[in-house]
Amino acid sequence: MPTTDMRFSPVLGGVTAPKGFVAAGVAAGLKKSGRPDVALLAASGPVPAAAVFTTNLVAAAPIVVSREHMALGRIRAVVTNAGNANACTGARGLADARSMAAETAGALGCAPTEVIVASTGVIGAPLPVGLVLPAISVAAQALGRDSGDAAANAIMTTDTFPKQAAVSVHVGDRIYTVGGMAKGSGMIKPDMATMLAYITTDAPLTIEACDVALRAAVGRTFNRITVDSDTSTNDMCVLLASGEAGGRPIGPDCAEFEPVAQAVHLVCGELARMVVRDGEGATKFVEVTVRGAASERDAELAAFAIADSPLCKTAIFGADANWGRVAMAIGKSGARVDPDSFDIVFAGVPTCAGGTALAFDEAAAATALAQREVDILVDLHIGPHSATVWTCDLSYEYVHINGDYRS
Amino acid sequence: MPTTDMRFSPVLGGVTAPKGFVAAGVAAGLKKSGRPDVALLAASGPVPAAAVFTTNLVAAAPIVVSREHMALGRIRAVVTNAGNANACTGARGLADARSMAAETAGALGCAPTEVIVASTGVIGAPLPVGLVLPAISVAAQALGRDSGDAAANAIMTTDTFPKQAAVSVHVGDRIYTVGGMAKGSGMIKPDMATMLAYITTDAPLTIEACDVALRAAVGRTFNRITVDSDTSTNDMCVLLASGEAGGRPIGPDCAEFEPVAQAVHLVCGELARMVVRDGEGATKFVEVTVRGAASERDAELAAFAIADSPLCKTAIFGADANWGRVAMAIGKSGARVDPDSFDIVFAGVPTCAGGTALAFDEAAAATALAQREVDILVDLHIGPHSATVWTCDLSYEYVHINGDYRS
Repeated sequence: MPTTDMRFSPVLGGVTAPKGFVAAGVAAGLKKSGRPDVALLAASGPVPAAAVFTTNLVAAAPIVVSREHMALGRIRAVVTNAGNANACTGARGLADARSMAAETAGALGCAPTEVIVASTGVIGAPLPVGLVLPAISVAAQALGRDSGDAAANAIMTTDTFPKQAAVSVHVGDRIYTVGGMAKGSGMIKPDMATMLAYITTDAPLTIEACDVALRAAVGRTFNRITVDSDTSTNDMCVLLASGEAGGRPIGPDCAEFEPVAQAVHLVCGELARMVVRDGEGATKFVEVTVRGAASERDAELAAFAIADSPLCKTAIFGADANWGRVAMAIGKSGARVDPDSFDIVFAGVPTCAGGTALAFDEAAAATALAQREVDILVDLHIGPHSATVWTCDLSYEYVHINGDYRS
Repeated sequence: MPTTDMRFSPVLGGVTAPKGFVAAGVAAGLKKSGRPDVALLAASGPVPAAAVFTTNLVAAAPIVVSREHMALGRIRAVVTNAGNANACTGARGLADARSMAAETAGALGCAPTEVIVASTGVIGAPLPVGLVLPAISVAAQALGRDSGDAAANAIMTTDTFPKQAAVSVHVGDRIYTVGGMAKGSGMIKPDMATMLAYITTDAPLTIEACDVALRAAVGRTFNRITVDSDTSTNDMCVLLASGEAGGRPIGPDCAEFEPVAQAVHLVCGELARMVVRDGEGATKFVEVTVRGAASERDAELAAFAIADSPLCKTAIFGADANWGRVAMAIGKSGARVDPDSFDIVFAGVPTCAGGTALAFDEAAAATALAQREVDILVDLHIGPHSATVWTCDLSYEYVHINGDYRS
């Protein structure tokens, strides 16, 4: 990631930081708290776009509808409700998702097929569409470049803070901006997409360039995080390119493509790490890197086995340098592992070399584990491949939130 | 399982219930509590045996040694220490495991290769072999048929109760007895074996019959339980057949084989369910059945996806009929699932049919979920195959135990 590349500058805001996008967040009454729960994101007209969706076979109604619409090409707007996932809702759920697209299209003057629909919240309850549709009309009236924050708030469920990021990149004498917002919290192990993430850019990317840039970024950002190993029925990540920064269209082979794609990667990475930091009950942010693997897939398998292990996660919560659980996790991961060759550095402290325990300073480890950020590094010493995965610890609060979520 | 077959009768005790076995449990000082932590199980001489071991590639030293010994044939004794896993301990760990076998062999007058060695406890700490070896000598002096309880206690770690079961089966005018003991608690998702389980019988099974009976039983008992989805480095399940009930040798094709194999299955099933009931922090016992699957493997995948899901487990802890999380789990499981055809019965309450939410009585569901035992039934309506998996809920106490295990 080109974070030291001076061409990239962080920018305030999120999806409305790039030119050509407006947003709104309003309260429809789905959240018992009365907080905003319907978000609208719109481009000035239909623009090139790409999306990735959950691989969960039990896909929610809005996923089914948005897949259809995305296949038709350009996208004008994305409408989202929080507080109800519209999943396992049968024919009525599909009709409700189509109504949300139609209502948005009517308010903006575009085709319903130019609207992406997203929902997030409890699975298996009918969508109170009578509350959602009027709220969409209100949101359409409220659209503005200064309402990115409102939209980022409206898509939250058990999230404790809104997640936004934006980056500008200089290419020649032109500046392209990429912005984004996301929501996460629980049921987070995205596979081809995360819970909900929307990325915008004013670069004139073609549809193909959108697709290439989005898939490359998601593969190593949203698809490299896990809170609780559970993959949502509603995952979706969308990229919209307004082109309003000007210049010639940017296809995947253009010189301008790589810097813009890197900016997309930077924004996706920032948002993905925010999702983990705000994982349900998280008290610590954990970066797991596995290197020396026989393949990138092996590195990813081993890193996810650690990041998904309840025993590794509770050890980190308890500030216990119980690195033996990391050894257990890589051994069961399915990755090629030589039991006599791996090294483990736990929170900066070498604890295992050549598969064998090292004497280490428990006090130093305890100090390192008292921090909010913990790194786990494993070297398999088998090959040249590596992968980094981000996760959080497993705390009492995760059990509390999820033992009492619906009520 | 032939639980209604009158030929089978429950018997008191565990590994010493069948004729031809003695046991002992003594305190070596590995457990800080001072409780017994070295167990010895011995047959009158070398007997036919079979074993299955962890599939974790980071296998502990005793697993490596026991695999070697099992390959050579007959087994005289099984020696176990609790409180230290002797895993990730390198060449010294292997030497320590061999010392435990040699010490046991010396005390019993057999070959070291006739001894199975097992360890359970923290990973990555050197085994205090200076404490273990003298305790083995003491245990050899204490061996008796009335010390099955002492042995079952000595193999415990965070277990809250010892796990024993025994069954007699009448075949013609002969009675064969199968007994067993196990320990479990955390790091439990056995794959070809569980944490530690020892099964004995006085039936004159051949080595081949031991192997066939053990693998068949383990596949649908110990390999169908999960506490926390983590697979230990030290899993092992051993079957020893003393033959002291008399009669001709029983090979896999003999008429006597099937009843004895079913008795082995009954004992393994009892012990496996005890391991789940005593899962770390468990407040509820959960039976997950998936039927109507395209294959038994698919049924197993879907059932384990539910049983391993932190969101399903915390919902059950919180007595919340949040069946949408069950829908999520089957959708991500990798099993073939038709999103428009599955039914879910959650704690006896039908909540979803044809992939769509049903209106249901929340009060009835809450009452059912207040019980200590919860059933989840999914029908995929795709094929004729089914699988049942046993698990427990995920509670604050699991986080407490595992946030503070080593200290």
